[in-house]
Amino acid sequence: MNREQPAPPRIAVIGPGKVGTTLAILLERSRLHVDWFGARDPVRAAEAASYLVRPPAVCPPEEAVREADLVLLTVQDDAIEPVCSALAKAGGVRPGSAWLHCSGALPGSVMANALHHFGCPVGSMHPLQTFPTVEAGVARLPGALVACEGEPNAVSLALRLAKAIGGRPIQIGSDRKQLYHAAAVLACNGLVALVDAALTLTNAAGLPESDARAGLSTILETTLDNIERLGTTAALTGPAARGDAATLNLQYAALRSENGPVLAELYRAINLQALAIAQRSGRLTLEQAEKARSALTPS
Amino acid sequence: MNREQPAPPRIAVIGPGKVGTTLAILLERSRLHVDWFGARDPVRAAEAASYLVRPPAVCPPEEAVREADLVLLTVQDDAIEPVCSALAKAGGVRPGSAWLHCSGALPGSVMANALHHFGCPVGSMHPLQTFPTVEAGVARLPGALVACEGEPNAVSLALRLAKAIGGRPIQIGSDRKQLYHAAAVLACNGLVALVDAALTLTNAAGLPESDARAGLSTILETTLDNIERLGTTAALTGPAARGDAATLNLQYAALRSENGPVLAELYRAINLQALAIAQRSGRLTLEQAEKARSALTPS
Repeated sequence: MNREQPAPPRIAVIGPGKVGTTLAILLERSRLHVDWFGARDPVRAAEAASYLVRPPAVCPPEEAVREADLVLLTVQDDAIEPVCSALAKAGGVRPGSAWLHCSGALPGSVMANALHHFGCPVGSMHPLQTFPTVEAGVARLPGALVACEGEPNAVSLALRLAKAIGGRPIQIGSDRKQLYHAAAVLACNGLVALVDAALTLTNAAGLPESDARAGLSTILETTLDNIERLGTTAALTGPAARGDAATLNLQYAALRSENGPVLAELYRAINLQALAIAQRSGRLTLEQAEKARSALTPS
Repeated sequence: MNREQPAPPRIAVIGPGKVGTTLAILLERSRLHVDWFGARDPVRAAEAASYLVRPPAVCPPEEAVREADLVLLTVQDDAIEPVCSALAKAGGVRPGSAWLHCSGALPGSVMANALHHFGCPVGSMHPLQTFPTVEAGVARLPGALVACEGEPNAVSLALRLAKAIGGRPIQIGSDRKQLYHAAAVLACNGLVALVDAALTLTNAAGLPESDARAGLSTILETTLDNIERLGTTAALTGPAARGDAATLNLQYAALRSENGPVLAELYRAINLQALAIAQRSGRLTLEQAEKARSALTPS
């Protein structure tokens, strides 16, 4: 009664940078294995291959894809479509092979024009994680959400790979991927923007940078912990949470006059969202929230 | 040649809620000690006192401040001035006693009108930390930045107390406190706003909430780690960091039409700050940054 495992696909990684190398390492640790690294730069590709116990063959992209069942494209977003077109023209695409890219912003369908002539199902597989180094990627990818979308035969492989590398695979509608990625941008790039803006202000307030950085890190860690344990509604504190229109108005006005529109609009935008949370949860009445919102307009 | 330690001040805490109780516990563990808990509600004050090995005397506020060298006011922001005025009128203020409140938004000078008649130096001491419970406060306050400002005799006591409780004391100009607090609001309330907004989008994208929460927590933890180790410039990733105007425009337009102005403006504001970082650090030219900025305007 044992369920037969599908045969492991023969995999080519095109563009083995930090993401591609990380995926290859984690796939090797599972039952899957990368057979080819396709790259224009054989020196860098050989360096990437040296991370692996059974190093993939390093070859030009058009050779790497020739016998692959699955092609993982781990190039920059703006290179995905041109690389597919070039490979299609070079005649190396194996008919019926599945193609996945790892962009967060783009759907797999950006590869469709170039590859449909070969009957290749296309999709994408985006690990919600940062890869500052290969080592960090290998350490951090397990447990990360991996958003998978695309045509059925592509998405099933994406889900299988995401699970194999220890991720948390989630299938997402292709037309919804934009929203998923906007969420990732808001949270992840937004956090960097907030800390940077806060450091500009603590600097203007005369705080030594090292103290300000340490102090902000400490409270951000505990705020993240509060969010995880209590949810965003209960974790919200500060002037918006208590409908303190006077403080919001004073601080918004001070930022506008002293620090310019970018910081002031950031302050306004996070507080408008905070007011929406406080109102939605009943901590503020509509009248209180409206009063606080009107305190966040240029006087 | 040993330097004499100043005699420990006799301390009254007015309004022993979570912050006041946490401070009293940490002061008791140092060489300092709280002698009085002044509160309108004796039952809650007695409960707070029970946290301490040598419980402070529980009494009405006007009795608590009568013999105190230092009064710590740990009431809500909007109660600080009224409580001072009421105590001044009740005649309980000890001439020359130092008064500190723990508000982040307000300077110590909000107590001056009520207390200067008694020659009381005023100031403030704001721990940059959240206090969801007394236990969490006691665990988290050590290492937290404590911003101290006010008149010389008040601020010197604030710095001494902040050090005694294991904080990272920082003296700040009274006229700069607004900027310091705006920084704390941006970082701390801003993080809650971002996660809440991101969860709205992952929900709209059809992701199960528990997976989205776990996935966002994971990437936010690593992003915070990247910021701490690399700084905000190097930790920045995403469409703004690479000047990807097309993605910024698509996502901004999608949020505007599908999720309304609050989320769209939050997306815009964090990306304008991210573009400022990328431009400042030379990752984007002025032209690239301008092109990306113009992609974040309503079409």
